[in-house]
Amino acid sequence: MPILAEQSNKNTIHISNKKTVYLENLVFDKDGEPMMPTVSELKNAVDVAAERQAADLIIKNVNLINVFSNEITKTNVAISGRLIAGIGLQYQNAKEIIDAKGRYLAPGLIDGHLHIESSLATPRSYAEVVLPKGITGVVCDPHEIGNVSGVAGINWLIDASQGLELDVWVTVPSSVPATNLETSGAKLGLEEIEELLAEQRVVGVAELMSFPDIIAGDLENLSKAALAYKYDKTAEGHAPSVSGSELQAYLATGISSDHESTSFDEGLEKLRSGVYLMIREGSVTRDLDALMDLIKIENSDRIGFVTDDRLPNDLISEGGVDCLLRRALAAGKDPAYAIRCASYNTALHYKLARRGAVAAGYFADMILISDLENLVITDVYKEGKLIAQNGQLTKELARPKADPEAVLNTVILPKLSLESFKMTVSQTNSKVRCIKASPKQILTEEIHISPKLNGNEVIADIDNDILKLVCIERHGKNGNIGLGLINGMGFKEGAIASTVGHDHHNLMAIGTNDSDLLLAVNRLEQIQGGFVIANKGQILAELQLEIAGLVSDRPLSELKEKLDILEEHASKLGNKITSPFMTLSFLGLEVIPELRVTDLGLVDVIKAQVVDLEVK
Amino acid sequence: MPILAEQSNKNTIHISNKKTVYLENLVFDKDGEPMMPTVSELKNAVDVAAERQAADLIIKNVNLINVFSNEITKTNVAISGRLIAGIGLQYQNAKEIIDAKGRYLAPGLIDGHLHIESSLATPRSYAEVVLPKGITGVVCDPHEIGNVSGVAGINWLIDASQGLELDVWVTVPSSVPATNLETSGAKLGLEEIEELLAEQRVVGVAELMSFPDIIAGDLENLSKAALAYKYDKTAEGHAPSVSGSELQAYLATGISSDHESTSFDEGLEKLRSGVYLMIREGSVTRDLDALMDLIKIENSDRIGFVTDDRLPNDLISEGGVDCLLRRALAAGKDPAYAIRCASYNTALHYKLARRGAVAAGYFADMILISDLENLVITDVYKEGKLIAQNGQLTKELARPKADPEAVLNTVILPKLSLESFKMTVSQTNSKVRCIKASPKQILTEEIHISPKLNGNEVIADIDNDILKLVCIERHGKNGNIGLGLINGMGFKEGAIASTVGHDHHNLMAIGTNDSDLLLAVNRLEQIQGGFVIANKGQILAELQLEIAGLVSDRPLSELKEKLDILEEHASKLGNKITSPFMTLSFLGLEVIPELRVTDLGLVDVIKAQVVDLEVK
Repeated sequence: MPILAEQSNKNTIHISNKKTVYLENLVFDKDGEPMMPTVSELKNAVDVAAERQAADLIIKNVNLINVFSNEITKTNVAISGRLIAGIGLQYQNAKEIIDAKGRYLAPGLIDGHLHIESSLATPRSYAEVVLPKGITGVVCDPHEIGNVSGVAGINWLIDASQGLELDVWVTVPSSVPATNLETSGAKLGLEEIEELLAEQRVVGVAELMSFPDIIAGDLENLSKAALAYKYDKTAEGHAPSVSGSELQAYLATGISSDHESTSFDEGLEKLRSGVYLMIREGSVTRDLDALMDLIKIENSDRIGFVTDDRLPNDLISEGGVDCLLRRALAAGKDPAYAIRCASYNTALHYKLARRGAVAAGYFADMILISDLENLVITDVYKEGKLIAQNGQLTKELARPKADPEAVLNTVILPKLSLESFKMTVSQTNSKVRCIKASPKQILTEEIHISPKLNGNEVIADIDNDILKLVCIERHGKNGNIGLGLINGMGFKEGAIASTVGHDHHNLMAIGTNDSDLLLAVNRLEQIQGGFVIANKGQILAELQLEIAGLVSDRPLSELKEKLDILEEHASKLGNKITSPFMTLSFLGLEVIPELRVTDLGLVDVIKAQVVDLEVK
Repeated sequence: MPILAEQSNKNTIHISNKKTVYLENLVFDKDGEPMMPTVSELKNAVDVAAERQAADLIIKNVNLINVFSNEITKTNVAISGRLIAGIGLQYQNAKEIIDAKGRYLAPGLIDGHLHIESSLATPRSYAEVVLPKGITGVVCDPHEIGNVSGVAGINWLIDASQGLELDVWVTVPSSVPATNLETSGAKLGLEEIEELLAEQRVVGVAELMSFPDIIAGDLENLSKAALAYKYDKTAEGHAPSVSGSELQAYLATGISSDHESTSFDEGLEKLRSGVYLMIREGSVTRDLDALMDLIKIENSDRIGFVTDDRLPNDLISEGGVDCLLRRALAAGKDPAYAIRCASYNTALHYKLARRGAVAAGYFADMILISDLENLVITDVYKEGKLIAQNGQLTKELARPKADPEAVLNTVILPKLSLESFKMTVSQTNSKVRCIKASPKQILTEEIHISPKLNGNEVIADIDNDILKLVCIERHGKNGNIGLGLINGMGFKEGAIASTVGHDHHNLMAIGTNDSDLLLAVNRLEQIQGGFVIANKGQILAELQLEIAGLVSDRPLSELKEKLDILEEHASKLGNKITSPFMTLSFLGLEVIPELRVTDLGLVDVIKAQVVDLEVK
């Protein structure tokens, strides 16, 4: 016989016939919503499963994808509030009954590692696109906004993903700044990392990227890994091509995952070494084909799917983590196991309680699939509510109450003039260093050239595709300007500029002439960030990224359109690189070989030092 | 280049060339020992793996059982302090090098659920026996000592397993007392459960046994499950034969495991329903054969091995959780997967960081196996140290500093005389209730008999095997005495008594005559607990269990011998039940049908109420 309960306030229940006070909402999110089911919710779910109370929803005639037993079975599912109350019975009593007519029912998909900022969108705009694709949770590393706005920026992202139907779990950026060869907007030391680790929705320390330092035994990095364990959270990895004794040294720290494997052998070595192997298919880095053969039941809980970095167009056309699942299914992988890699395994790795499976007691994050072979997802349920159908959201998403103070007005430039971009040589026969961009990779090459001169002033040499590359400190810290030359872009006229500049996100710009360069750069300060293209004294097109100079709250489709227009203009100006703004954003990343420009100047990545323009 | 570090005290490291203070020992156990590796330990492990520093130990030429990739591979393993520093390299440099000559190397075994008290031993005496068998960790539910001594008793057990080479993780007893039809020594309410959940070595809320209440939606039980989630810990299950909608209701609470399946179908239903399925092979309850076919790679992380309750003789002869592994291997199960079920899967379920696998960054809890088919374990390493070889400990275990105050002197009886055991009927032709013991099961039957009378006093009827059964409240609470009759034991003379009496652990005794009964009972108060057998005014044999009346700190082999002697005497007095003291200890367990005696009197289990001796 059920005991009558009366909820007196949020924290206690008085039981009428016992005079006992019970604990109620035990774990709260930042806005006061309970993270875990309350005792009242549990009571309702138990009463529904035991058929004493009507279910809120019954989905009958499903083919359940069982990630526990690796089977597909015909059954019915009963929902109570946010929870799955029970599976497998002939429930009769419900407020709503849906006949799935044999469609497949699977857990909502979870992306194990990504940077939302790469989509150029806020969490809300991101969620609008991925929720209809069946993605109900993501583990994000707010590395970019952390570099610009520090703890406040990360807290903004946490707040800005509050109350969306998408679960946004957060890992704390571990490498801010990347090196001391740049000026970042913020630094995240051990104290800041610890402060963030204590947050409910924070699940770990994000990819520890300074693998050479870690392998060398750097204590600050080891302390970051140890901090994760202090909070019973995970320490995530990032160790491209690290192998043998170096891999063992990296893992000896307790770092437990990696998403940088690009070959089967690399993946297998890491898997055997205890790495939770995240298979990544980003916009640029595409590893799924190489690692496809690792997707097999023998690897049980050790494989997960992630997207890392996806651009707006890919998110819209290919999707997010659903893209990996779709391709794995197309490759003939066992459906239950492939779905496990896109849901339960990720939940298990990050210890996300009650997520990643369709079973009693789990949150009712579920997708209905009409065509398993092609992964056609017809219905998406988040915590028991239908939120998307046939690729469309069924209602507008809530607007999270996030205070934008910390992430607006982040583009603070020094006073600039044409003089600011002046580069000189000491001798007219000097050879100078020039960055050679690759048309497809983010790797660059250092080449040595004889520059075009005007007196002793180095100027753009359009005939030889040698343009000016500028990195301007934009966090209002010191007004540094780094100058260099870039070959391989192809621009014949105009200039482009971006406040997305990995990882410090200083203002990056390329110009065929100084006045268009100045115009583009100044325009970015006016609109407080984004991408701009200018020519002959006119702004041709722009994409405003008003939040931290990195993302915008406008719909992802609009961001994509504006980016398309920017790229069309770039082509007209002679650009021959596929994604010129993306390429530009990586030209200041001083941890990827060979030559880069940060606000401190030209950086030789291998030597890890600032070098002169002139080759001595 | 490694940075020079100088440890200034336990909590900080000053780095000489940086003036930065780093966090050091981040998570401490109760005695101040770090639970997780310190930053210094990580540094050493990294330096060993990167071959900058000599390993403390290298074990070369092992066949590594890889629980991640489900493979066996030839390799070498390097140890640094408590940690595995690295796998797979040609390490040359070590303080000690052992050639395993192709023996198999596996993680130390972990038992996922047991009651140490069932061994009649303290954690230390228990550890002495199971460590040489390759068991390096156990998750225990101190349910028995919790019933006697409450929070203080559980804290004693935590302290008493501190610093042993055996990891003893604890789940908080969830059902103390079992019902209100008994007087237990302590009660564990929500406040007490929460207090214990905050402890470092506590990993969850133990088996929620009141499954009928839970299925009925009892809020106190639901709150216990919710509390586990508040602390990111697990809520463990106990749901024998629960199936269908009742199983779904039970699981809707978030309870995530079960160890009570006794048939393949029951196990499969639970597994499919999301239960972490613990396969149990105890002393009495033996489920392994029935569930053997569930041990397969398709069930990946969802299967674990547990022993629940094992008596001294079985622990010594068959072993603990190694017994399940041995039998699984003998049945032809995949060795890597079977070992996974006895190690990694359990670690994963309870979120035991860095345990359950042989890989860089994991604690070096390892076993060497010379004969995999018969599971012959030659060497046992705990946190990098050899602690047992060829079935023998290599050194004496430390004596934990546990304050015995709370668990000694727990047998406090009322003043007793022959009068205390007097039972009467109102009419000489009355029929009375009698418990019929089963020779093999702990189930009992209620039978109605015409008692042997002396006037209106009921006396033992030896010819018809009707003896007196007594339950005396022994916690000093109220001095209750419950009286009843028992059939099926076979004693022709004498009396036996025990302070082990599930779950309240009141004093249970059976007598052929009141004076031997009184003698036996009084002797138990003198020795403060244990088992006693008396005849004709003499104590024939006894086993003192001085700690909470439940366990002893003497070696397990000595406990077994004394128990053997007690049982021999029992046979001589006519006993025909296999384990008479074990049977006696269950005759007061008022949650298992049909008829029991608690200190409140005769209990009809089905009706859940106290009933009269006379059938009206």
